[in-house]
Amino acid sequence: MKPLDEVTRQASEWLRGVGPLSDIVISSRIRLARNVRGYVFLSRADADTRTELAELLQAAIRRSRDLEGLVHLDLERLDDLDRAVLVERHLISRQHAEGSGARRVAFDGNEVAALMINEEDHLRVQVMRSGLQLDQAWEQISSIDDALQENLEFAFHPKYGYLTACPTNVGTGIRVSVMLHLPALRLTNELEKVFQAAKEMRLAIRGFHGEGTEALGDLFQISNQVTLGRTEIEIIEDFRDAIIPRIVEYERAARTSLLKNRLHALDDKIWRALGTLQNARLISSSEAMQYLSHLRMGVHTGRLKNIELQTLNELFLQTQPAHLQKLQGERLTGEQRSYVRASLIRARLSRN
Amino acid sequence: MKPLDEVTRQASEWLRGVGPLSDIVISSRIRLARNVRGYVFLSRADADTRTELAELLQAAIRRSRDLEGLVHLDLERLDDLDRAVLVERHLISRQHAEGSGARRVAFDGNEVAALMINEEDHLRVQVMRSGLQLDQAWEQISSIDDALQENLEFAFHPKYGYLTACPTNVGTGIRVSVMLHLPALRLTNELEKVFQAAKEMRLAIRGFHGEGTEALGDLFQISNQVTLGRTEIEIIEDFRDAIIPRIVEYERAARTSLLKNRLHALDDKIWRALGTLQNARLISSSEAMQYLSHLRMGVHTGRLKNIELQTLNELFLQTQPAHLQKLQGERLTGEQRSYVRASLIRARLSRN
Repeated sequence: MKPLDEVTRQASEWLRGVGPLSDIVISSRIRLARNVRGYVFLSRADADTRTELAELLQAAIRRSRDLEGLVHLDLERLDDLDRAVLVERHLISRQHAEGSGARRVAFDGNEVAALMINEEDHLRVQVMRSGLQLDQAWEQISSIDDALQENLEFAFHPKYGYLTACPTNVGTGIRVSVMLHLPALRLTNELEKVFQAAKEMRLAIRGFHGEGTEALGDLFQISNQVTLGRTEIEIIEDFRDAIIPRIVEYERAARTSLLKNRLHALDDKIWRALGTLQNARLISSSEAMQYLSHLRMGVHTGRLKNIELQTLNELFLQTQPAHLQKLQGERLTGEQRSYVRASLIRARLSRN
Repeated sequence: MKPLDEVTRQASEWLRGVGPLSDIVISSRIRLARNVRGYVFLSRADADTRTELAELLQAAIRRSRDLEGLVHLDLERLDDLDRAVLVERHLISRQHAEGSGARRVAFDGNEVAALMINEEDHLRVQVMRSGLQLDQAWEQISSIDDALQENLEFAFHPKYGYLTACPTNVGTGIRVSVMLHLPALRLTNELEKVFQAAKEMRLAIRGFHGEGTEALGDLFQISNQVTLGRTEIEIIEDFRDAIIPRIVEYERAARTSLLKNRLHALDDKIWRALGTLQNARLISSSEAMQYLSHLRMGVHTGRLKNIELQTLNELFLQTQPAHLQKLQGERLTGEQRSYVRASLIRARLSRN
């Protein structure tokens, strides 16, 4: 897998640490769920139908306006390590990686747009950008959706909207997810309060790797749960103008409060993280993410100089198990990974 | 308290890190319990009797051979901070510090010999030396005991031996305590095995600060529980030739095994400790001791260069709460102590 070897070395677009509110908003993602009219949902599709769908969708993507240059990968022909790299880069879901039968993915070189074929729905399109860039993401994904509809007819019901495998996606088929870095709210024990408010607004809160995963490195994905009865624009405006600014405000207030009232405790977290990362000889991926999170907070609160955000963002990805093994060029046991991970981090954060 | 201010800045003799087996044996302590004939035990003594005893004993010490130059302190005239400094230096017990009524202490400039007046018994004499030096300690404490007996008559029963307030001390009144540094046995989870064997030999195992305290910094005090029916020489020989060499052997084997089979895990402990101590902004005394313990192991396994044992030994003492406040010249809250302690450690372990 030549392209993947190359891909592994760079940070994804969504991890570039740029864009509006990027001190707190890591990335903005919009995903659309689509199914091809005239085909059964995947839960009822046999192997031949899956294959037919995969080929039909891949061909349609290839000839769609602005989608000509995508990287196309056949998940059945990738080994588990390569599929795990794609999951760690958020180009495919864990479910897509671990599934069976014909399934593919296509994405552009910057990894902004990705199209999963035969995941839960026939097609899932996502656009993911750094910082709070929901309008730009929406514009781009709409354009992709329009281009695809020039070559494909999607299952659509005049009353219910887009039909999807899971009823929670019926309607617009849209899911908006914003990944937030909330280390100060964690330190001040205010996360629960924020999450409670989010739940009341019928938002879902997930960890770094999406559904059912832990909040590694103080990273949280906030996403809508309701797709029916609201327009895409309403959902996006709600995120852009109300939900995200409010949580960002909470996190900012927590950071200000730490700087003003608990500076030693804040510095202690930041510098212990640096000291540990610069010295550990064995480190797990979740521990590394936690300490990288504290360094990121250190950079954004102005307490930590001489550390590039770019370095931290790259390490966030490269210390993940599959990335680490790709970088090392061999399969590693858990203990070997801990050792290689610690060495990589020390080299990147060395004092010179 | 001028003498104490000075004392606080230096490491005690017993923490010098020299003497036989000093990579594992921190110190050897022998203590004798004595009561003056013709006086009731302290549990039944009124205030006047306590005062009379204190003066009588202090006077006897002052005129005894080789004991002329001791520092004499009246615990009633010391504040709690000064008394706590004496406890942290193992010159008096916690019980002695926190007791009430007339009670005193006398010790020599090197803090090798210390005499507690009106602790549990009328008089407790201790000699404490660095490394495994039980013979030397026994020789010195016998000589002190002899010198005192030229001026005092101790309660002694021809059948039972020296009479003491607590029946567990009756007989020789001797307690032999050896403080051991066992970080490798802790890391390899073999401590329980060693302790079980020690208990079967009717030995007591205590933490850094003696009875009822935690094993801070992987430091353990092993001492005899039986004083009756065995001579002092038998007890000491048992420690010198059997008990201590055996535990030292276990710890050495654990260190060798770590070096051979788990070098990364060993290095990880050592370097994380260094990284944390060089970077923390807030640190508790027990956490500091734990990390200093790992550095000590690093020095003795040859993994850590450029760190002086002397520095670690001084920090062991100076990071204790009372020492820290004496060094700082003011009383500090718990949080202030954490901050000052972290600053002191950073300054002493700085990379330059």
